[in-house]
Amino acid sequence: MSTALILLAAGQGTRMNSDLPKVLHEVAGAPLLVHAMKAGAALEPERIVVVAGHGAEAVEAAARAHDDTVSVALQSEQNGTAHAVAQAAPLLADFDGDAFVLYGDTPFISPETLERMAAARAHHDLVVLGFEAAEPGRYGRLKMSGETLDAIVEFKDATESERAITFCNSGVIAAPARLLFDLIGEVGNDNASGEYYLTDVVALARARGLSATAIACDESETLGVNSRAELAAAEAAFQARARAAALEDGVTLIAPETVHFAHDTVIGRDTLIEQNVIFGPGVTVESGARIRAFSHLEGCHVSRGAIVGPYARLRPGAELAEDTRIGNFVEIKNAVIDEGAKVNHLSYIGDAHLGSGTNIGAGTITCNYDGVMKHHTEIGQNVFVGSNTMLIAPVTIGDDAMTGSGSVITRDVPAGALAIARGKQVVKPGFARKLFEILKATKAKRDKGST
Amino acid sequence: MSTALILLAAGQGTRMNSDLPKVLHEVAGAPLLVHAMKAGAALEPERIVVVAGHGAEAVEAAARAHDDTVSVALQSEQNGTAHAVAQAAPLLADFDGDAFVLYGDTPFISPETLERMAAARAHHDLVVLGFEAAEPGRYGRLKMSGETLDAIVEFKDATESERAITFCNSGVIAAPARLLFDLIGEVGNDNASGEYYLTDVVALARARGLSATAIACDESETLGVNSRAELAAAEAAFQARARAAALEDGVTLIAPETVHFAHDTVIGRDTLIEQNVIFGPGVTVESGARIRAFSHLEGCHVSRGAIVGPYARLRPGAELAEDTRIGNFVEIKNAVIDEGAKVNHLSYIGDAHLGSGTNIGAGTITCNYDGVMKHHTEIGQNVFVGSNTMLIAPVTIGDDAMTGSGSVITRDVPAGALAIARGKQVVKPGFARKLFEILKATKAKRDKGST
Amino acid sequence: MSTALILLAAGQGTRMNSDLPKVLHEVAGAPLLVHAMKAGAALEPERIVVVAGHGAEAVEAAARAHDDTVSVALQSEQNGTAHAVAQAAPLLADFDGDAFVLYGDTPFISPETLERMAAARAHHDLVVLGFEAAEPGRYGRLKMSGETLDAIVEFKDATESERAITFCNSGVIAAPARLLFDLIGEVGNDNASGEYYLTDVVALARARGLSATAIACDESETLGVNSRAELAAAEAAFQARARAAALEDGVTLIAPETVHFAHDTVIGRDTLIEQNVIFGPGVTVESGARIRAFSHLEGCHVSRGAIVGPYARLRPGAELAEDTRIGNFVEIKNAVIDEGAKVNHLSYIGDAHLGSGTNIGAGTITCNYDGVMKHHTEIGQNVFVGSNTMLIAPVTIGDDAMTGSGSVITRDVPAGALAIARGKQVVKPGFARKLFEILKATKAKRDKGST
Repeated sequence: MSTALILLAAGQGTRMNSDLPKVLHEVAGAPLLVHAMKAGAALEPERIVVVAGHGAEAVEAAARAHDDTVSVALQSEQNGTAHAVAQAAPLLADFDGDAFVLYGDTPFISPETLERMAAARAHHDLVVLGFEAAEPGRYGRLKMSGETLDAIVEFKDATESERAITFCNSGVIAAPARLLFDLIGEVGNDNASGEYYLTDVVALARARGLSATAIACDESETLGVNSRAELAAAEAAFQARARAAALEDGVTLIAPETVHFAHDTVIGRDTLIEQNVIFGPGVTVESGARIRAFSHLEGCHVSRGAIVGPYARLRPGAELAEDTRIGNFVEIKNAVIDEGAKVNHLSYIGDAHLGSGTNIGAGTITCNYDGVMKHHTEIGQNVFVGSNTMLIAPVTIGDDAMTGSGSVITRDVPAGALAIARGKQVVKPGFARKLFEILKATKAKRDKGST
Repeated sequence: MSTALILLAAGQGTRMNSDLPKVLHEVAGAPLLVHAMKAGAALEPERIVVVAGHGAEAVEAAARAHDDTVSVALQSEQNGTAHAVAQAAPLLADFDGDAFVLYGDTPFISPETLERMAAARAHHDLVVLGFEAAEPGRYGRLKMSGETLDAIVEFKDATESERAITFCNSGVIAAPARLLFDLIGEVGNDNASGEYYLTDVVALARARGLSATAIACDESETLGVNSRAELAAAEAAFQARARAAALEDGVTLIAPETVHFAHDTVIGRDTLIEQNVIFGPGVTVESGARIRAFSHLEGCHVSRGAIVGPYARLRPGAELAEDTRIGNFVEIKNAVIDEGAKVNHLSYIGDAHLGSGTNIGAGTITCNYDGVMKHHTEIGQNVFVGSNTMLIAPVTIGDDAMTGSGSVITRDVPAGALAIARGKQVVKPGFARKLFEILKATKAKRDKGST
Repeated sequence: MSTALILLAAGQGTRMNSDLPKVLHEVAGAPLLVHAMKAGAALEPERIVVVAGHGAEAVEAAARAHDDTVSVALQSEQNGTAHAVAQAAPLLADFDGDAFVLYGDTPFISPETLERMAAARAHHDLVVLGFEAAEPGRYGRLKMSGETLDAIVEFKDATESERAITFCNSGVIAAPARLLFDLIGEVGNDNASGEYYLTDVVALARARGLSATAIACDESETLGVNSRAELAAAEAAFQARARAAALEDGVTLIAPETVHFAHDTVIGRDTLIEQNVIFGPGVTVESGARIRAFSHLEGCHVSRGAIVGPYARLRPGAELAEDTRIGNFVEIKNAVIDEGAKVNHLSYIGDAHLGSGTNIGAGTITCNYDGVMKHHTEIGQNVFVGSNTMLIAPVTIGDDAMTGSGSVITRDVPAGALAIARGKQVVKPGFARKLFEILKATKAKRDKGST
């Protein structure tokens, strides 16, 4: 059965108190909407329709950045969830498979849960996702007879015995797309808020003699985000799971609560991650690496045996080969560091390639920007770059070459050569003492003048 | 009604195990005493008297640094709270309004609570601040008849039924100053510890037929600090509240528990604060800025659209205009950074002004200190300062100028000019290989010699 | 009575999911095994035998690194705890004192607990260590009659009333070494797992009419490590205790949960430790120092009144005298910094000595490595090292000397002299504007070409 995802992402999220559309707020480095899309990907959907409203342009851009096959329906007024789903109908007019309605602000529905819903569709026309609520509060209740879902009862309409039900509605629903849109056509708005509710389709389907069921997932999967505090709670929930998974996979986290993963971080077994390490999106760390404290990694690859940090920043495009060393107060951007090469202290390496065994002295900078364009620095194998070398890109340093400390290298250096570019040391005996005396006298005069 | 604050701040705080007077230990970057003064400021007091004892000189200095209208009474011996308040009497001999007794080690009484006490003074001679204690333990109990406070019963003197009372005494009290000092004159020290207790004034007032009442506040407001563990708990309580307030105000905190605010931090809506960010005192961040991970800000202003960090340190006097960028391993001190200017890597900018659109290359340093005095660096608009430029202050770089990487700039650079100060590159073919051989041979010889 | 420790350290730790032997995983910067050895040291053992198996070579190396008197017995097959202890017998054939069996994966048995066990040995042949279990689960139960231990009952063999016992077996046991090995000789493996259990010696001893007792310790002391999650929990438990102890000792921790101590960290009274500070092994901080946020210290000594950080990294061999200042983005390694000396910004000081009162300018680097060997830098008193000075070691700067900013110092500088080594500043009027135009034109051409 082919599948279409309908992702509701039109809400403003008033309680977020933000100019950014709610579904674009991020958890673990990805917008909430992308988390929902990633979960839905388990269904291998043939179509994905995002229903956008507030900030529709930005929502569309984010959705397409993650998956450029997405189409976007515009819900200009927010008249309820049924109304939102209805906006997707024209885009799915030619579609004959199942539709799954997901929510852009509900990032944690698991792929397994959606697969179970898909399986249940074989036996039922409608499949609703429910959960046992610890505090059912004002959630809609799912009335079951065995595995049949009789009705979804809104809290305000529920009898006392119905309110005692703890199996609640998540809002996620699966049905044949044509049936779903057909039922939605019958949904009315004769209720307190004057909105069209998607949940009404269950009663409408049952009235037609169709069958419905509900699948249960863990309540934590249904966590929705409506405020910055809930966003922080969602982030914390994600991190707790990611940390536990890393430990389980044989990663040592000295202080798990101080390590922050992104949605797509991959860490190999027997990697040691020290305290206060942050992974932005796009990081892979191979087995047996060590990420030292206070490091920040983003869009990079760290190979076996590499040691990174403390206080190392790896930016997108940093590719560290085996047994490399990136030390403190070092920034690496868009640079390939070959096996065994070292950048240990206070350096900026950007738009560069370092050959294997090369050692970069403290304070070295690849001057990759001329104020208008960025240029590449190419450094060979077993090169010794002296401390505080400025490498004015584009520039090439050959294998086994050396640069003198404090040199500004503007022209290529051949293999095996020494390049040096600095002033000659001049020593003026007694001059420092005299200078201090003059400076102190100046200051005394100035201080006197200011009183 | 005019008001005087009497702040008791004489205690040694033995359990702090410290040479620093207890009330000078800090929460959120301000001494405990200052927190109490800030709460009391809600009453718009005409007079503030701090009763100091241990470390009186330092306590006085801290109090005056926050509010130079403070007067200080010395309590040379610690003979109880009534004795402490009595030391303030001479300084308030000419004062005819209300006195509020607050405690320098109790930082969290809210302004609203004090305002409610002030309102209650309209109807009662004495107003005591109480709280419902989760664990009443050895607190004094407040015996109420309706809204009348009959007595404060010390735990050790309480009957079993009185011990069942959970409404407890915080020690904070409000009364007409003259009445208060008059009542205190009658307080005796005929008790186990031989001290004069302020709580006794309630019974003395009641005996005179005066009326007393008690106002309730949340127990968390009455949290006192008596040990470093309690100090850490007070800090944690402050931070929890500050983080929740920031989220509520529309600030995104990716990991709230890793962000530390000061007592006076102001953060605009739709600002994103990443993990592990520390705000020292005196920071304002406008809406829509982004403070990246591992940043440390103190005494600075960050405008809309600015991006700070990761690993940026903004020290007092850093003024960042809109859309500025301060990057990793960068320190900014006493410097105005105009719109759109960038200092992205490994730099120190101190005592300087950067014009709009200017770009500071990696490794740049304003050499503001000559060993005796500090000097200013002035940089114009749209300047391109090459990497590793040393700017020997005082020095001025004109608009649209440029400096060559690795230059030491000692003299002013006119607008539009290029200034360059560096050695010429010399390349010695084959020299690096030879040098390595020599060094290795030397090492081999040395290693042999040392065995 | 002389004592031998038998440390069982042969297990693979399958659930660790690691190539590293379980007992070599670290808590607070020391292998689990070393924690057990440190606890056992309270008994002043005459002999220490580590029973190693998986990764025996590495385990032996770690044990000897901590105490080179250790001998190691090899348990090639893991046939149970009695079998493990039996491997130690040949190494203790000539030993006539008491043996204590400890576990390499149980790091928190306290010295006091072991001393109580030793005291109990005066009255009983066998002494077992037990604990009141919050959740007894499948632990072995200790059946006591008064202070006599009647038997250790395995959970699976226990009657319902025996399962109700909450006093459980930790596995730690003390007995005369000869008796212990003799009893172990009688232990069989006629049980479900076919292993030889050490606990069986109690029943065997009782059958011989010997006396046994059990000493109780807190359950937290018996915490064993079997997975990375448990390792992280052990680390957290260690840190919680270390933080509480520091607060108790008069150290201020602004945010205790963000400070990480090593097993041997020593911090003086009235030291202030800010947020996010990490102590590796071997750190001593004297009273009244201040360790600012985001600092990382390892193998170093910080004296009274010193201020370190924020963002300071002190590596092994950093010795800071009183009132020194190490500022942001500064790395100090194997260097003695005399009284009042300052290294405030963006510097690397390695293999060096700085005299008192000396000031190191921002961006200074001791170039201690020539690609083959490390060399020393000697700097006198009251020296002013200009910003971005490269000190090419070996080199000596005399007292009261000065170096010009941006200088590369290759030769010694006499006392009181000024050394300067840099290019002369050349200004090319209008050149920057022209250069920008050329670069922009080039870029425009390039961009056009690429479309």
